[in-house]
Amino acid sequence: MAGASMPVYRPSHGGNLVWAASLAHCSPAAILDFSASINPLGPPPSAIAAIQAALGEVNAYPDPTYSQLCHAISNFHHIPPEWILPGNGSAELLTWACRELADLDKTYLLTPAFSDYQRALKAFGAVVEECPLDEFRVPSAECRVPSAVSPLDWLRHSPFAIRSGLLLNNPHNPTGQLLTREAIAPYLDQFALVVVDEAFMDFLPPGEDHSVIDWVQQYPNLVVLRSLTKFYSLPGLRLGYAIAHPERIQRWQQWRDPWSVNSLAAAVGSVVLQDTAFQQQTWDWLATMRPKFEHQLARIPGLQPLTSAANFFLVQSDRSVPELQATLLKHDQILIRDCMSFPELGDRYFRVAVRTAEENQRLIDALSQRIGNRE
Amino acid sequence: MAGASMPVYRPSHGGNLVWAASLAHCSPAAILDFSASINPLGPPPSAIAAIQAALGEVNAYPDPTYSQLCHAISNFHHIPPEWILPGNGSAELLTWACRELADLDKTYLLTPAFSDYQRALKAFGAVVEECPLDEFRVPSAECRVPSAVSPLDWLRHSPFAIRSGLLLNNPHNPTGQLLTREAIAPYLDQFALVVVDEAFMDFLPPGEDHSVIDWVQQYPNLVVLRSLTKFYSLPGLRLGYAIAHPERIQRWQQWRDPWSVNSLAAAVGSVVLQDTAFQQQTWDWLATMRPKFEHQLARIPGLQPLTSAANFFLVQSDRSVPELQATLLKHDQILIRDCMSFPELGDRYFRVAVRTAEENQRLIDALSQRIGNRE
Repeated sequence: MAGASMPVYRPSHGGNLVWAASLAHCSPAAILDFSASINPLGPPPSAIAAIQAALGEVNAYPDPTYSQLCHAISNFHHIPPEWILPGNGSAELLTWACRELADLDKTYLLTPAFSDYQRALKAFGAVVEECPLDEFRVPSAECRVPSAVSPLDWLRHSPFAIRSGLLLNNPHNPTGQLLTREAIAPYLDQFALVVVDEAFMDFLPPGEDHSVIDWVQQYPNLVVLRSLTKFYSLPGLRLGYAIAHPERIQRWQQWRDPWSVNSLAAAVGSVVLQDTAFQQQTWDWLATMRPKFEHQLARIPGLQPLTSAANFFLVQSDRSVPELQATLLKHDQILIRDCMSFPELGDRYFRVAVRTAEENQRLIDALSQRIGNRE
Repeated sequence: MAGASMPVYRPSHGGNLVWAASLAHCSPAAILDFSASINPLGPPPSAIAAIQAALGEVNAYPDPTYSQLCHAISNFHHIPPEWILPGNGSAELLTWACRELADLDKTYLLTPAFSDYQRALKAFGAVVEECPLDEFRVPSAECRVPSAVSPLDWLRHSPFAIRSGLLLNNPHNPTGQLLTREAIAPYLDQFALVVVDEAFMDFLPPGEDHSVIDWVQQYPNLVVLRSLTKFYSLPGLRLGYAIAHPERIQRWQQWRDPWSVNSLAAAVGSVVLQDTAFQQQTWDWLATMRPKFEHQLARIPGLQPLTSAANFFLVQSDRSVPELQATLLKHDQILIRDCMSFPELGDRYFRVAVRTAEENQRLIDALSQRIGNRE
């Protein structure tokens, strides 16, 4: 019955507040959004101040070399600027990465996969070989999947890999699992191109992260994609970057127009990477809130969250999620991410971002009530 | 001698203030920029207010359907929303238009051509056939080129056109010439795909413009590209749109990521198209200022401006422009657009935007002094 009034169009991504608001009969701003995995502590005041300061310059074209932004990223990662390409969100750079992957015989894709990977690979006619990440299924409570696993062992001896590419995200979306650097290392010798989407890696504090950015200068076949809009809560502004060999960077620059990043995003990027106070605040919040939220979710009958290294949880549900999603929208103005766009997951999984203590509690209360009412 | 200290990197587009500032030894904001053809009256207060109002929403993803923006464009042009695709500047949409052109046997390109056309066509391996717009040469003062010409007559009987595409801008950049609708009409029956870049068409008041937007619903082989950042002085924000057949729009949407337009640009677009006061103010300013500026330029010995239908002038110079450009930067902090990126024009042409009376006078004074000093 809840499903009957669903619009035909179902978003294939989180964060579609216009769609959600039409179901919830409220304004998009009134929705409590657990579907997009955005840091609830941001945007940092430093970002808003940078936008305000740059407003006077929107009447000029962005610097097509983005030199100030590239230098800020360069200082942050200790990588020379010519290895860096800022993009209109990491989603834009994914498109160009997939154009390169499409030139290879085959691209191995870890599934369940973020649906935009399939879109971008298809856009250039890539041949895709899906690699199921079997470990995504929630085991018994006594035997949690470790947060660092190597699910691609079986790929190592593939005879086709030399002319093949590999597209990974790490931490993995939607499961939140972390691949260790050691797990990724062998693929660099085995695949013609390895694209690692580290959109959520900055949520792991220094020393705990498994970024492979420092390997890019040794491996011309490695591309790392990063986002600045999830950690700094600026998805509306669009800002990401690729780290790759300068020849590849130059090729991508010729594929796209010269002013891909708007000047407000460019100004913000230079500033937030230096906002160490906001970074520490976020790591502290996540270290406290993630285990607490997991525990709260696990206590609700019929729900099993998967232990996560990121700022979101994949939750297995013993009942249909689209109905639960619609009920939460209509009665509580809360949006959770269904997993219908991940064919391997279907209607028994949802994803939720970790938010503030109070917001998490609102979700837990709503879930308890809606699920309880149906028992 | 002025050329001796030029950096190796020469921008291939106007508006590169970072490069200019390094030559002028001042801040980018201190440069008086005649090189980018941006409306000097903007941005309109309505645009800045829209950005401020939308700042609170940058922590959410843009609506991937951009429904509010599409409806505003739809109302403005009286075209159904499904025929409209907003883009990250019209430059992004040019990339996808050129991907389609590259699928044809050949693309006819009016030259001299905006250098990003060649970039985008090359990006997808298009075969380009250049069509020289011979009329760009400045005739004697008594015999001005009319503002509406049909330079492509010779193309009409090309036997290859049926599997060929045509890429035009109208008004033409850098000459400022206007093709009439009557001149364009025959190409729609002759070419498999006609892409008309109308980036500067909104500078022509209603009744005088020669937009072909109203033909798109009759001709599935017609694509019109429009910019919102030149007329409304927001090139830093990035906003343009394509008007084309819904099937084509859907195909392009699958080629790119779902959130190509940042939410501040989307918010601004919905507002400025309704700002009729700013539109009228711009048309009034240009009607007064353009003939006056042309007259001022023509009176400087050795300079011949070409009559223009747009908000800029192509000016033929009897001496080397790169040296003049460097002198103006160093001594006057004024940037003019050299035409070295247009191989047909070379070092004896420059392009200048029409700006305010006071700013135009500053350029005229500087040109008179620098050119006078060398005689």
